[in-house]
Amino acid sequence: MIRVLWPGKTKNWELRRLIETYRQRIEKMITFELVETREARGLGDEATEMTKIKEAGYLKKLLKDDYVVCLSDRGKEMSSIEFAHWLQRKLATNSRPLTFIIGGYAGLADEIMARANELLSLSRMTFSHELCRLLLLEQIYRSLTQMKGWPYAK
Amino acid sequence: MIRVLWPGKTKNWELRRLIETYRQRIEKMITFELVETREARGLGDEATEMTKIKEAGYLKKLLKDDYVVCLSDRGKEMSSIEFAHWLQRKLATNSRPLTFIIGGYAGLADEIMARANELLSLSRMTFSHELCRLLLLEQIYRSLTQMKGWPYAK
Repeated sequence: MIRVLWPGKTKNWELRRLIETYRQRIEKMITFELVETREARGLGDEATEMTKIKEAGYLKKLLKDDYVVCLSDRGKEMSSIEFAHWLQRKLATNSRPLTFIIGGYAGLADEIMARANELLSLSRMTFSHELCRLLLLEQIYRSLTQMKGWPYAK
Repeated sequence: MIRVLWPGKTKNWELRRLIETYRQRIEKMITFELVETREARGLGDEATEMTKIKEAGYLKKLLKDDYVVCLSDRGKEMSSIEFAHWLQRKLATNSRPLTFIIGGYAGLADEIMARANELLSLSRMTFSHELCRLLLLEQIYRSLTQMKGWPYAK
């Protein structure tokens, strides 16, 4: 089982639609849960620490014995092939949910980062947190199609 | 001046809209030209070499003394900060157009790769060529806002 958690709904509607497309595709291939957890609102741009701590609280409630992978610029970079092999191995050897967490606008609190079993980086470049949501789902879908030997658009 | 070339229109309409949004934003900040060159159609999935060669012909016609940067998985990876510094340096020291080329479905022909002054990689992961279009424009826009000291959504 794969889970993906992030705080707040995707505001950009084109990205929201694209994410929804990949969610539906992934759901046809594997037990998959995407949860948009509660967002800390109205704290203002200066209160990033408080935002992260509040959002960590909402995220934590959903974690039990999950194998947690946080997206982070300090994480490990993998090629798509390496990621597909890694994903296949994790799914084969874990009965626990494999849970990816993407931070919101303010990022992830230290507490959540400390809970992570692994850190993953999608790129050395920084993309907006909403775009990272799409990139992760695209990459999970790509890996699953590869495992099944399906063709996938380049 | 920044130019971006790729063969064929973006078929996914959400991506097309997102790309258009970034194109408009970039155009407000710098002389910018985005050209969707002619696509080689109807050659079938087996004819990737022929597709690449045909599309290279259309791309080449648009290149004069351009400083060409091809997107490639063999390219150099940069962080967003490094990319912004690199972009600033290129724009400051080049009077020639700075031209990014992204391959189509079949990729870029050797002839175009050989014409490149530099190769750039957006990620160790492979994303669809249409998604790469969005990622490149997002990253150019991010760099330009940073150069101007504007705030940019994380």
